[in-house]
Parts: sequence; structure tokens; C-alpha cells
Amino acid sequence: MLITPGWGTEVPGRFKESQLVEQIRVRAATLNAPGLVVGPGDDCAVVQTAAGSTVLLTVDQLTVGRHVTAATSIDLIARKAIARSVSDIAAMAAVPKWSLVSGLLSDGMSEAAANELCESLHRWGLFFDAPVVGGDIASGPADAPLTLSVTVMGELAAGDAPVLRSGAVVGDAVFVSGVLGGSFDPVTGGGKHLEFVPRVALARALRALLGRNLHAMMDISDGLGRDAARMARASNVTFEIDAARLPQSTACKSWRNAMGDGEDYELLFTLPSDAAENMPVHLDGITLTRIGEVKVGQGCWVHHAGERFDAQSMGWDHGASGV
Amino acid sequence: MLITPGWGTEVPGRFKESQLVEQIRVRAATLNAPGLVVGPGDDCAVVQTAAGSTVLLTVDQLTVGRHVTAATSIDLIARKAIARSVSDIAAMAAVPKWSLVSGLLSDGMSEAAANELCESLHRWGLFFDAPVVGGDIASGPADAPLTLSVTVMGELAAGDAPVLRSGAVVGDAVFVSGVLGGSFDPVTGGGKHLEFVPRVALARALRALLGRNLHAMMDISDGLGRDAARMARASNVTFEIDAARLPQSTACKSWRNAMGDGEDYELLFTLPSDAAENMPVHLDGITLTRIGEVKVGQGCWVHHAGERFDAQSMGWDHGASGV
Repeated sequence: MLITPGWGTEVPGRFKESQLVEQIRVRAATLNAPGLVVGPGDDCAVVQTAAGSTVLLTVDQLTVGRHVTAATSIDLIARKAIARSVSDIAAMAAVPKWSLVSGLLSDGMSEAAANELCESLHRWGLFFDAPVVGGDIASGPADAPLTLSVTVMGELAAGDAPVLRSGAVVGDAVFVSGVLGGSFDPVTGGGKHLEFVPRVALARALRALLGRNLHAMMDISDGLGRDAARMARASNVTFEIDAARLPQSTACKSWRNAMGDGEDYELLFTLPSDAAENMPVHLDGITLTRIGEVKVGQGCWVHHAGERFDAQSMGWDHGASGV
Repeated sequence: MLITPGWGTEVPGRFKESQLVEQIRVRAATLNAPGLVVGPGDDCAVVQTAAGSTVLLTVDQLTVGRHVTAATSIDLIARKAIARSVSDIAAMAAVPKWSLVSGLLSDGMSEAAANELCESLHRWGLFFDAPVVGGDIASGPADAPLTLSVTVMGELAAGDAPVLRSGAVVGDAVFVSGVLGGSFDPVTGGGKHLEFVPRVALARALRALLGRNLHAMMDISDGLGRDAARMARASNVTFEIDAARLPQSTACKSWRNAMGDGEDYELLFTLPSDAAENMPVHLDGITLTRIGEVKVGQGCWVHHAGERFDAQSMGWDHGASGV
């Protein structure tokens, strides 16, 4: 979601977030880091400690004017900052444990606002089971946009493997949780993007239900089209999505919005077609919808009224996720 | 170190970093987080995973114009950003394992500069044994100062306890590693603050040498006076420092600079006086200097030419460290 026009637009010679992310991935592919199980390119890095714990690490930044409007309350800014990183932990079917927050605050921020920010981060950390155990505060220039960087560390139970983006297999059915689209209200700046609950419990319920049949999973932050294309690429397959099946939120205006609005923070996951026949309609109180199939090929495609559209540009260059 | 005049200065009604840090500590004292061994207030948070690993987590931000000048090369900015967080891991006598970096980049940054930044972060992560396994890039307004937030996860060997700030005991001798003062060259913006090597190996050698006699340790980032006062407060003792004993760097102009310049990234540690008699002059190639004693009382004091000065304001309100 690009709130302030201009930021993130492409200018020749200037850096482009998605290109930079690709550069980082290329470097990461050659990374020789002892204990590294899953490097950059998925929702979280996965590492193995010397004592045998499987630990997940993820970081996301939130910048006012970019990921939330300047009118957003401090409490909801703090909430979204924590929830976004927790959602990355959910995407791998792990549990969040602790978080660290660093904040760049405008030098002109009032003492009351700064205190409220700390209080809100503390409270939302506890609320999302990722208590803030450390952090860093720095003041920037008076016109610096408030920027929060939230690291969350998660853990997997012994014997559990992280569910990756790269596990989708030809013949799988593609599912999403909840409803999509219209998460950001362009008039008020509000909406689900400020109030979502990361799907930690649902992800664990899916693993408990499906076991190794839960082939691939990620959270949808940059738009279903863009994110599904990422999963397809990581798995070296193609996704074929049926626009008519997309579960649209009440704020969603069309299937295109469901594909591209982003900021849904729902789960996208795949499982074998035969297991898909027995999937419940709801799990942990949340709707599960089969939206497509995994086939041989490349990219992500959406079918609507007899036409086939390239879905991988449906979404926004969020840059942030999945490095 | 306050490079840009104005940032971080105190204005009534506006937030003050050190006050905010104190607020965070107060909240953290009541933090009920399963597995939390050491919460906010030391160099790192220390947590225990379900599988029994003792993991350290720390985050530090680096903002151009605040922690480095705008003239600093991208490579040295990346180096300092990684090294500062690794230094926090060293301060607890643990080893760094992995790091995550989030960067807020000016929208006007060139593609070449952004690529160089990623390459440098990757290389310095490997160099300091904290390979970058994940991250996040976001673009900010064209005049946003480049801000890097580096989380480092460290680990302790089985059976090792973290060395805390709070372990200094009356009767201890106070030591520092290396030399102090003049780390930031006000003319060039360069100096040791850009080129230091975190004392990871030295800290481990000290633990191997001293065992449980290594009572308390921290890294000196905000100035010896300010940091020693923090250690004294955490340990509920007073530090009495002899100005004549302070090991001054060649760039250091007086004992006051050694006390207050900051950005030394040396180790401050205490051990029983009797063990101090047998301390080597060098360890791991680095000078160790006994600079004072731990006594009953409060605060940190420095003795010079028969006078006793309050040292706790000797340093700068860095805000960042140790939350």
C-alpha cells in the first residue's frame, strides 16, 4: 500500500525496493552461515541453535506516511507494527515468543506521545504473545516520519518443521483463509490493515489437521496476486486461481481488489487435492476457501469470465516482506 | 555522540530519549514473559527457548547525521551498524550468531548506493560472525536520513551464564579494555567509532580466565562515566575511578575525554580485588587496565588531583543502548 504518492515510485537510476530485495536474495543464496536452515526469501529466517532449538527470526518496518497515514493513532500504529511481524511467524506455523522494537522518532514528538507509543508497544506485544523484551529509541530530524522496526523471534516445537513458501507441489489445491480486499479505507486510512489478528492459532490448527500435507504457506501482505506469484516461483510451479471463488470482504469492490489490494494478513496455503476434499469450511472460527490449483509452469494466473490474467503484478511493491 | 546540533537536545514538553528508556525499563520490570531471563535494561535481552537454548537478542539503530556524519562512506556506515550490535553481544560474553537488518532509505538514493549498502551489510555481517539472514528495506521521503536497525541474536554455550551489569560487588576492582577517548574525529567525522572491532574474543577470554570471578561487564558506548554509572546503579554500588589510571588513546586530549567522549566500544568489567592482583596486562592482544574500585554507595565518581567529580553526566545521551 502506497499512501504517500511519490515514495516508492520508480525513477531511473534510483533504487527500487523489489530489485534490492532480489539482490539480497542472490547474496543470501551463497550465505555460509552455520546453523542457518532457511535464509532470506521466506517469511522468516530459520536457524538452529547449538542446543538444538529451531528459532525463527523476522523483521518488518512500519513508516508513517507509507504503511499508515499520518492520521493513524499511535496505538494503532504500534498495534500494526507488532502484528505485521507476528504474522510472518504465523506464516510458518510457528509461535511468536519475544520481540524487539527500534523506533526513529521525530525530535519534535511530545513526551506524552512518546510515552503512549512505548506503552502501546508494550501492551500489544503482550496481546500478541510476543512481549517486547528490548529495543532502541533514537530521535531524528523534526520532519522524520515515525518509523518502527519490529523483530520477532518465534520457535517451533521439537520435531516440527517450518512450513515454507517453496513446498507447493503440482496437483495441490490452493486455499486462503478469511476474506480479501478493501483492507485499507482510502477515505479514513483505517480498515482491517490496522486491526487484523495474525493467524497464529489458525496456522497451528492447520498443521495439526493436515500434518505434512500442509505443503506450503505464507501470509498475504502485498496482495494475493503478487504473493501467490512469489510462492509459485519459490516452488517452481504455476498457480491458477479462479476469480469467482475469491472470498471478498464487504469492503472489497471486485475480484481485482481481492487479488491486488494487499494488507490482508490472511494465510495462503496449499495441500494435496485429495486432502482438499475433506477440508472443513471453517477452522478456528475462520473461513477456508479453495481458490485454485497448482500446475506445471511459471507465474500466477487468475481466470475470470473465460479470460486468463497475469496476476503477479496485482499487488503493490511493499518491498518489506520476505527478505 | 551528537553530530547534528539540535537532535536530542532537551526541549520542554518534548520527549527525552533517556527518560523514555527509563519508562520502558519500568514497564519491563513487570513483564511476565515466559522464558525471559534478562529483560530490558542490560546490553541484551536474554531468553530461554523451550528446547533449552540460552539466546541473546539486541537491537541498535544507526542514523546518518546522528551516529555518523553525512560524509561517512556507505561501507563504514554498514560496518558500524553491524559492529555496534555485535558489541552488545560481546558485553555479555556470548557469541554472535545471526543478524537481521532493516533499512529506511531515502527515496532519492541511487540504485548503485543501495546495492553497495546491501553488499556491505552482507560482507560485514560475515566478517563479524553475525551473517545477515533477513531484513527489510523501505523507502522514506527524499530527505529522510538513512537509518539502519540491526538486530543480532547471540548464543551462550550450555552452562554459561550471561555476564550482566548488575553483578558488581563491593570490594571489586574495575577494569577497562583498550584505550579510551577521541574515538570520534570532529574534523573528519572518522576515527575509531567507525573502525572498532567488537570485543567478542576478549570477552570470551576473560570468562575463560576468570570464570565466576568475572562479576559484571558491559560495553562502553555512551562514555565511561555515564556507562559506569549505569553499571553502578544496576549493581547498587558506587564506582570510584582514578583519572590518572585511565588508558587514553593517542587521539584523547584529557582524562575528561576518556571519561566522556563515548563510542569507545571497549569492555568495562569488575572482578574481586584479590583476583585483580593476578590479572595479565594484555589478553587476546588487548591492554587491560585497572581504573578503580567498587565501594558502598551510589553513583560513579572520578578522582583527579585531590578532587572528586561526579562522572555520571560524563558521556552523551545516546538513548540507544541497553533498553
